[in-house]
Amino acid sequence: MPTFVQRLASRRGGSPMARKIHLITGGAGFIGSHLVRELVKREHEVIVFDNLSLGNFCNLDCALAGGLCSFRLVDCSNLADFRSAAGTALGGRRAQAIWHLAANSNIPAGVADPGIDLQHTFMTTFNALQVMKEFEIQEFHFSSSSAIYGDFGNTLICESAGPCLPISNYGAMKLASEGQISATLEIHGRKASIFRFPNVVGVPATHGVILDFVRKLRADKSCLRVLGDGTQKKAYLHVDDLISAMLTISEVGSSKINVYNIGPCDEGVTVRFIAETVRNHIAPDAEVIYGRENRGWVGDVPRFRYSTANLSELGWRPRMSSDAAVRRAVDEIVSCCSD
Amino acid sequence: MPTFVQRLASRRGGSPMARKIHLITGGAGFIGSHLVRELVKREHEVIVFDNLSLGNFCNLDCALAGGLCSFRLVDCSNLADFRSAAGTALGGRRAQAIWHLAANSNIPAGVADPGIDLQHTFMTTFNALQVMKEFEIQEFHFSSSSAIYGDFGNTLICESAGPCLPISNYGAMKLASEGQISATLEIHGRKASIFRFPNVVGVPATHGVILDFVRKLRADKSCLRVLGDGTQKKAYLHVDDLISAMLTISEVGSSKINVYNIGPCDEGVTVRFIAETVRNHIAPDAEVIYGRENRGWVGDVPRFRYSTANLSELGWRPRMSSDAAVRRAVDEIVSCCSD
Repeated sequence: MPTFVQRLASRRGGSPMARKIHLITGGAGFIGSHLVRELVKREHEVIVFDNLSLGNFCNLDCALAGGLCSFRLVDCSNLADFRSAAGTALGGRRAQAIWHLAANSNIPAGVADPGIDLQHTFMTTFNALQVMKEFEIQEFHFSSSSAIYGDFGNTLICESAGPCLPISNYGAMKLASEGQISATLEIHGRKASIFRFPNVVGVPATHGVILDFVRKLRADKSCLRVLGDGTQKKAYLHVDDLISAMLTISEVGSSKINVYNIGPCDEGVTVRFIAETVRNHIAPDAEVIYGRENRGWVGDVPRFRYSTANLSELGWRPRMSSDAAVRRAVDEIVSCCSD
Repeated sequence: MPTFVQRLASRRGGSPMARKIHLITGGAGFIGSHLVRELVKREHEVIVFDNLSLGNFCNLDCALAGGLCSFRLVDCSNLADFRSAAGTALGGRRAQAIWHLAANSNIPAGVADPGIDLQHTFMTTFNALQVMKEFEIQEFHFSSSSAIYGDFGNTLICESAGPCLPISNYGAMKLASEGQISATLEIHGRKASIFRFPNVVGVPATHGVILDFVRKLRADKSCLRVLGDGTQKKAYLHVDDLISAMLTISEVGSSKINVYNIGPCDEGVTVRFIAETVRNHIAPDAEVIYGRENRGWVGDVPRFRYSTANLSELGWRPRMSSDAAVRRAVDEIVSCCSD
């Protein structure tokens, strides 16, 4: 006969004893906070590690209020601090998985100083793998990036494409992280996921082309100056779809190391489309002025054709196309971002 | 009318003013010292940077005696020291190229402690790229490794193979280095070479299966115990052929980043062949005892099929097959290594 607590737990999706614990680095960031929310919704316990340099404590408000999420202010690029924070938070309990999302997501900053990506994009991975080993955690899920590939021109990029010649330090340190995860799994751990992210849109965005355009147009409603000639075409995925894909891969991926391109099933939209969508929302009379180059900044890949066939084979489909994702994200960003 | 010095220089292959300066990290090591010797033979000036942890000053005897080679004792994983050594050695002159060969070549040590490969295999690359930028050097030539690929089973591995999932920290940090080189070349430098090395044999070897067998048999002439079942089959290249390939790629490679598998044109020889060749040399009556696994240690890939078609297209051919390279290296190691 089950006790009241057991019956309650069963209604909530599992016994408290069996509740899985997930550690999430960068969990207060744009993507991290959505992942936290979804895992908490599924009745998992979540421990967030974030230095709040790009993340924001407010992003976790709802999750923290529910009692299944806790927060540790820590810089994961410092192994001693990270280890100590993990030890205190776990208190001898065993975690199911680390979701490693902490990184420097400001690509131009990393181009200016490669030390930033070394420390915040690679060393955080190196340390998260160390924590995985020390606390005997069996799963490691990692936010890699399409930036690892570099410029493949008009070629459709599958996960098996090579050689990977990234053109930004961010891409280089994501590639380095993939390699280190693979080498670590050889001696420890049951399973890893490597999610090669596309451009992800939604709120609370901290950077990216939509937010840039919104800010520029709010500052000057007469015109919008665009870096590059606007012909750059990329796929965009809404953050809700991204989280859904990550959870699917983590659950269904049957290899020891599951490497997947994540993205919409289309070839994307141009920067011109994004500029005009934002313009139409905020200042329909503004003039859009384009640059002359077909790339906006060092590390920007002008054209990008990304195959998500492997992910489709896994049975996952995005709910939104690039076009729909961008339109929805523009709505969300315009509503949420007051500055 | 040319002066005496100019005539002398012209006989020696170039004017002293036009002599190219090459910086070589790890230049006192097994492969580095062969490269130094060849560049000096071609009348280039060579500056060697080495911490002598795996390299040996004696390897440079001949090169140093000729006056075109100088040596700096420095740990390239320390940027301030490396920068200072490069500045002093160059004295305001411009170098043609950095050949970055410094690395931890002891794979099992790196498996035991990933910090070793982080520091000596990756951070040396990171710093060498910084030195390249600061001293406005235009070429970067890098000793990568077949270890970046991981285990592709029986698939023939081309340079375009992916995803690269290395199974050793050494391979991971070589892959990380490739990525960082690529990202750096996006903002600085004219040309880079990425040499994906096979197993390289010859003297003065510091490690490797031949040296292991020689040492074991000298210690006990009655039997030779082999890690693994002896069926592991790999391609081996003699160091003389390797240097020839590296120089060819550095001169003829026409891309901004030239990624080449280097190896013989065959599929290699088995560990059993190597064990028996060494046994026949040192102690023909010794019994060879094999293990049961088809890999010798963590990080060891049991079978490896490596395509060198791209290198062949560049017009380069090895002089020795795997079989001939191993036989010659056994001769050399038995003659040279007294311990």
